[in-house]
Amino acid sequence: MKLAVVGGGSTYTPELVDGFARLRDTLPVEELVLVDPAAERLELVGGLARRIFAKQGHPGRIVTTDDVAAGVEGADAVLLQLRVGGQAARNQDETWPLECGCVGQETTGAGGLAKAMRTVPVVLDIAEQVRRSAPDAWIIDFTNPVGIVTRALLQAGHRAVGLCNVAIGFQRKFAQLLDVLPEQVHLDHVGLNHLTWERGVRLGGPNGEDLLPKLLAEHGDSIADDLHMPRQIVDRLGVVPSYYLRYFYAHDEVVRELGTKPSRAAQVAAMEKELLEMYGDPALDEKPALLAKRGGAFYSEAAVALASSLLRNTGDVQVVNTYNNGTLPFLADDAVIEVPATVDATGATPLPVPPLEPLFAGLVANVTAYEDLALEAALRGGRDRVFAALLAHPLIGQYEYAEGLTDRLIAHNREHFAWA
Amino acid sequence: MKLAVVGGGSTYTPELVDGFARLRDTLPVEELVLVDPAAERLELVGGLARRIFAKQGHPGRIVTTDDVAAGVEGADAVLLQLRVGGQAARNQDETWPLECGCVGQETTGAGGLAKAMRTVPVVLDIAEQVRRSAPDAWIIDFTNPVGIVTRALLQAGHRAVGLCNVAIGFQRKFAQLLDVLPEQVHLDHVGLNHLTWERGVRLGGPNGEDLLPKLLAEHGDSIADDLHMPRQIVDRLGVVPSYYLRYFYAHDEVVRELGTKPSRAAQVAAMEKELLEMYGDPALDEKPALLAKRGGAFYSEAAVALASSLLRNTGDVQVVNTYNNGTLPFLADDAVIEVPATVDATGATPLPVPPLEPLFAGLVANVTAYEDLALEAALRGGRDRVFAALLAHPLIGQYEYAEGLTDRLIAHNREHFAWA
Amino acid sequence: MKLAVVGGGSTYTPELVDGFARLRDTLPVEELVLVDPAAERLELVGGLARRIFAKQGHPGRIVTTDDVAAGVEGADAVLLQLRVGGQAARNQDETWPLECGCVGQETTGAGGLAKAMRTVPVVLDIAEQVRRSAPDAWIIDFTNPVGIVTRALLQAGHRAVGLCNVAIGFQRKFAQLLDVLPEQVHLDHVGLNHLTWERGVRLGGPNGEDLLPKLLAEHGDSIADDLHMPRQIVDRLGVVPSYYLRYFYAHDEVVRELGTKPSRAAQVAAMEKELLEMYGDPALDEKPALLAKRGGAFYSEAAVALASSLLRNTGDVQVVNTYNNGTLPFLADDAVIEVPATVDATGATPLPVPPLEPLFAGLVANVTAYEDLALEAALRGGRDRVFAALLAHPLIGQYEYAEGLTDRLIAHNREHFAWA
Amino acid sequence: MKLAVVGGGSTYTPELVDGFARLRDTLPVEELVLVDPAAERLELVGGLARRIFAKQGHPGRIVTTDDVAAGVEGADAVLLQLRVGGQAARNQDETWPLECGCVGQETTGAGGLAKAMRTVPVVLDIAEQVRRSAPDAWIIDFTNPVGIVTRALLQAGHRAVGLCNVAIGFQRKFAQLLDVLPEQVHLDHVGLNHLTWERGVRLGGPNGEDLLPKLLAEHGDSIADDLHMPRQIVDRLGVVPSYYLRYFYAHDEVVRELGTKPSRAAQVAAMEKELLEMYGDPALDEKPALLAKRGGAFYSEAAVALASSLLRNTGDVQVVNTYNNGTLPFLADDAVIEVPATVDATGATPLPVPPLEPLFAGLVANVTAYEDLALEAALRGGRDRVFAALLAHPLIGQYEYAEGLTDRLIAHNREHFAWA
Repeated sequence: MKLAVVGGGSTYTPELVDGFARLRDTLPVEELVLVDPAAERLELVGGLARRIFAKQGHPGRIVTTDDVAAGVEGADAVLLQLRVGGQAARNQDETWPLECGCVGQETTGAGGLAKAMRTVPVVLDIAEQVRRSAPDAWIIDFTNPVGIVTRALLQAGHRAVGLCNVAIGFQRKFAQLLDVLPEQVHLDHVGLNHLTWERGVRLGGPNGEDLLPKLLAEHGDSIADDLHMPRQIVDRLGVVPSYYLRYFYAHDEVVRELGTKPSRAAQVAAMEKELLEMYGDPALDEKPALLAKRGGAFYSEAAVALASSLLRNTGDVQVVNTYNNGTLPFLADDAVIEVPATVDATGATPLPVPPLEPLFAGLVANVTAYEDLALEAALRGGRDRVFAALLAHPLIGQYEYAEGLTDRLIAHNREHFAWA
Repeated sequence: MKLAVVGGGSTYTPELVDGFARLRDTLPVEELVLVDPAAERLELVGGLARRIFAKQGHPGRIVTTDDVAAGVEGADAVLLQLRVGGQAARNQDETWPLECGCVGQETTGAGGLAKAMRTVPVVLDIAEQVRRSAPDAWIIDFTNPVGIVTRALLQAGHRAVGLCNVAIGFQRKFAQLLDVLPEQVHLDHVGLNHLTWERGVRLGGPNGEDLLPKLLAEHGDSIADDLHMPRQIVDRLGVVPSYYLRYFYAHDEVVRELGTKPSRAAQVAAMEKELLEMYGDPALDEKPALLAKRGGAFYSEAAVALASSLLRNTGDVQVVNTYNNGTLPFLADDAVIEVPATVDATGATPLPVPPLEPLFAGLVANVTAYEDLALEAALRGGRDRVFAALLAHPLIGQYEYAEGLTDRLIAHNREHFAWA
Repeated sequence: MKLAVVGGGSTYTPELVDGFARLRDTLPVEELVLVDPAAERLELVGGLARRIFAKQGHPGRIVTTDDVAAGVEGADAVLLQLRVGGQAARNQDETWPLECGCVGQETTGAGGLAKAMRTVPVVLDIAEQVRRSAPDAWIIDFTNPVGIVTRALLQAGHRAVGLCNVAIGFQRKFAQLLDVLPEQVHLDHVGLNHLTWERGVRLGGPNGEDLLPKLLAEHGDSIADDLHMPRQIVDRLGVVPSYYLRYFYAHDEVVRELGTKPSRAAQVAAMEKELLEMYGDPALDEKPALLAKRGGAFYSEAAVALASSLLRNTGDVQVVNTYNNGTLPFLADDAVIEVPATVDATGATPLPVPPLEPLFAGLVANVTAYEDLALEAALRGGRDRVFAALLAHPLIGQYEYAEGLTDRLIAHNREHFAWA
Repeated sequence: MKLAVVGGGSTYTPELVDGFARLRDTLPVEELVLVDPAAERLELVGGLARRIFAKQGHPGRIVTTDDVAAGVEGADAVLLQLRVGGQAARNQDETWPLECGCVGQETTGAGGLAKAMRTVPVVLDIAEQVRRSAPDAWIIDFTNPVGIVTRALLQAGHRAVGLCNVAIGFQRKFAQLLDVLPEQVHLDHVGLNHLTWERGVRLGGPNGEDLLPKLLAEHGDSIADDLHMPRQIVDRLGVVPSYYLRYFYAHDEVVRELGTKPSRAAQVAAMEKELLEMYGDPALDEKPALLAKRGGAFYSEAAVALASSLLRNTGDVQVVNTYNNGTLPFLADDAVIEVPATVDATGATPLPVPPLEPLFAGLVANVTAYEDLALEAALRGGRDRVFAALLAHPLIGQYEYAEGLTDRLIAHNREHFAWA
């Protein structure tokens, strides 16, 4: 079994490699190719990756290359975890929206549109190379904004599934609170990537007993604290929103907070510098503790599980991003949603979802409309399409802001846009 | 033919009566009953109404009463134009939302929810009386928020159609700009009450030539001025939004404006005082010029046309509020939409609507979800339902504001809420 | 010794009476006249006042009257604690400024101007009656806004001193933290009423050791918590601001908070209703515990001490509001400041104050300029003067807001303004 | 007579040189030294400067150098018009404050503090070189923020006067409206640099008839339009504020505007690129029309007049920035104010100023306090001093914003701050 990771030079990769090592029984990787144009960085990361495999006695081979075509050749699965423009671009995404009083974030709001527009064309190019070099490979997309990128891949006919760590994070958290094994926890997770709610927490599987009321009653404060939301709002909703919902439910508060502290990108950039120095130490043969602060917890577990389901045809249930196909009847079939799905060698098939309450459905429909326009803007470019997507976003929605954001989005990303 | 107007003591009624007089050929009213609990006011309005009919040689009889059951007995159509709580309540609706930084308006936002909650139970009571006293009568609802009120009526099984003057206003404006007769102008009007866009302006009928591009090219400035929006935004949208869209597209600007001038309700209240004094003058036998400033232009034309279609089974096309029934496929069948419909003795049947662009559809879906919850709150009451409706509204959407608004909405309307 | 309390029917009066009883050695009151136009309320309060004196064996006589001239006749001191317009007016002051995005508060910002404008003419009328009936009496003003009211009194030539409980509150708090007697704590308190900072906390007197650094080091968190400010800001300032400074230092945060909860006036009104019911119980002969929640802690201690200094010519130091007279050289001599002063039978003479740091002086100068204009508006009326005062206020300062606030201030207070 | 211009490579210089040429009778310059470290740019500007002198038959010599000491040696006056960090730094000053909801501007608000902090140390270094090489030279400072920079120069004992073109702009505008010669117009101009009001417009001199009421009556709309303020506000003020007052009187409106369009710095940078290309054309021998759009109108007239007064001991009246020395009694003597002053070989002596109305005095006092702290921060550095200055600024004043701004100011200017 051969896996390729595009963006393999990420400081995050040791987390992933550690997961492959720990979970080798679930996914016996024979060759792992790390593909990245940043040669120096890739060498540091690749070196540590090999030492991690070695220390854990993993027999798999680790290859590094900057050649996508060569790297993905014959792969069974290709993982996408790239960041077009790096932390510098992320820093931009997080700051200029604030100039217009809008949230600066790399997936939500205007920053997320910028990231989508930089990323979709690059990902589609890579996917074309995958199609040529490894036509049967599955593409597993971690690259944000996962919903839009996955839709771009699916619309172009690729064998792709989108993956996010929000669901697995809740699964682990709830399992710990309930004192059960993570695998026993089934989430009634529903919505779009980074716009989801846990409507049920079931023991054993989709038909198991719903322990969410009990969880909220006994651990509501801890759950609300993790979300940086007041306990009261979680109780009123009666479900557990993803913490990305805070950008909606507490938008103005978040904008003020972001205006009173340095950007997340600046923090991550500092952390990455430190991590790369560590990785260069030939004595280091495990992921350093600092890596846990970088975000992306449990991504490797999720990725291994998903790859295993796809490549070993398990037919088990995983929370993924895939075509709606009638699951949420108020969305188009080719909208991409994030829900539990049965995953096997044919791909992901969403489980049925009970009717979504209007309080959530209205927002899902509205953000899906934004995603339609965002994908249009990413694929076809042009100031008007950028403006339309921003005006359609429920966190923007006003022309004054949409104008200011459009100018800034283009000015800060001109080098990435062929049409600008 | 007998018509009853519930809320007939409104200062607006002379406009309606003048319409009935002018348009007697379209709708030969034999008896017009003005129903209103405000006896003194009703007498002033009724007196002028009779003088208007007399002056114009209209043979119809005008009756005034405070007894709904008696007034509607045997009516062919019942027009609802009431205002629960009067201008004082409207003034409240327009001011307390501003305390939370939200738009104060009587149909949109938190003020609109308050109005819906005061109004729906009263309208349903009246409709029950209509069902008993005039089971075959059509209920024509002008009472705001028209979308929610109409939905409440339809869900309770009443023969009801909702009517708003936005569409007829555009029709008259565009006819004037194009130098054609209003009847020649067909609007591709679509959305929800007070959330609509004109996507086409066709000459002669639904299949006529679309003159909207020409209109925008030649009269874009005038159209944008009427909307208090920059020309640029109209051009970017490529369609003509209702001026209620300004509460969305320029929300923060409107909030600031509202904070820098007295409320619209205060202005209308002053105007009504003046109008009632005029109405008391036995020499007055026509609607005074001042009435034109009160709002509601062309309501009588629209009402006469709609009543005529319903009662005379014309099968012509009118813009009304009625069940969606698949017209906008992303909404439930029992959502109420505002579109052109064929109207005959069986009621209103929407014409087909081409797919709605995401820029408009996202907002329509989101506001429909709010309306679902608003109707729930109006029918069943309770702080949690108020909060949920406010959180679902795309102009609110944040729990901090939703909390503050919920407390204020209830505090200012306690006397109207049986449950509070 | 005879004291009169104008506004004696306040629910707060039992607190004051309890203080007179407890502190009879400091201030041997022979006759206490409670003057109030609200007869029913006055009777309830007066009854309890008599029972408190009786229970504590105080020999003084308590008289109630609605006649100011009679009540103050021959008094040695007249205490002013009235509220023109009652809690209803306060509720207005706290809400309509929020409609313009400005802080709603009864002393600071636009609400404070409304209160000043309602209050100054009434207080000056009362003071004229004092001048006629008790020409040698001292007027002790608790009535807010104390700075502006005191200035109005002094400019009209009255023997007046303004008093606030902020300083005594800090004195008690710090004494407790330092485990010393309150009398041992001298505060380097400086600024304007409700705009003050504690720059030193000295043991024994004005020249004692400054324990403020120690206090902040050991109890900074507790002090900051009381102020609802982050510890960090207190440390950065290096002094302890009055909690009214939060309206400045955290203005927008406060506006948002106020928008998310009911007004303070509504809470106090509910509390007052409950208190008055208690007062009517003939078995009650002490101040009820609930009274402590009403605000105004230690006012009676401060009032007794000040009256004693004035009437018994003690020459001790008290924090009061009085003419600047060069104390802060950047303010006019006839500005009213709040500082420690030597108080004796000739009145209050401020102690010298070391130069005020620019960080505080700039705000003091700016608010003093506002107070100049506020007093002008209160004395002479007129829309332009209201507008000028609002534009001059550092929390407003923008004409858009000043316009909106001016209209609202006048609309909500028309009955109180002879000129409107 | 020898003049040196530090920052002589500015694209603005041809305007200045054109003025020296046109006004040679007022100020017979024999040698003009343009000092600038940007050699290439200086060459382009110097070339055009020489061609302008040549075309107009001016006999003066123009020298270019990057050596300050050499350039200023023996100069009679040194003009400072430098921009530390260039338009790139200005662009930063204009944008990051918006992230915190604060105005981005290069003299007012947080951006102005950044500029002051970058500029003061550089200007003081240059002034030291002037002291050594040309101890009798006058330093004329155009470099913003002029008030703070002039104060830094004066406090360090330099012979300095600060100059701004706001007053001369009004003089020319009013002269045109009144149809008189500019020299006939005396302005009752008062305040701080970029915080001034025209309280009178007198014909012939300080004691001439005040034509301001007539000007406002006849040309109020034109004057208000120039200021981008509503006519109504100018009428209410009764004086003409500098357009920089718009950052105060319409702060939030300006912040929103700035968020909806590209920065002024970006526009100027584009213009400068175009100008420099023009300057390189050897056929160009006059200032190009485009230069008029760059800002700084009438600076050369003001500079020539001021230099002439200082160097030729004229004793006439000019509006300058200089020590207060009791002119505004509520400010310290060593505050720097901007008022009409008698200027001769001994420097500038302010004319007496009638008492400043509280509406203006409060703001002047508050901004002066900020300038105190800004100068402290510029001279001594440190995060706490930056924070204190920002908290003291009346346009900031809240700790939440001051924190966010402090971090950003330092992060964006680290390379300019020795202490950071």
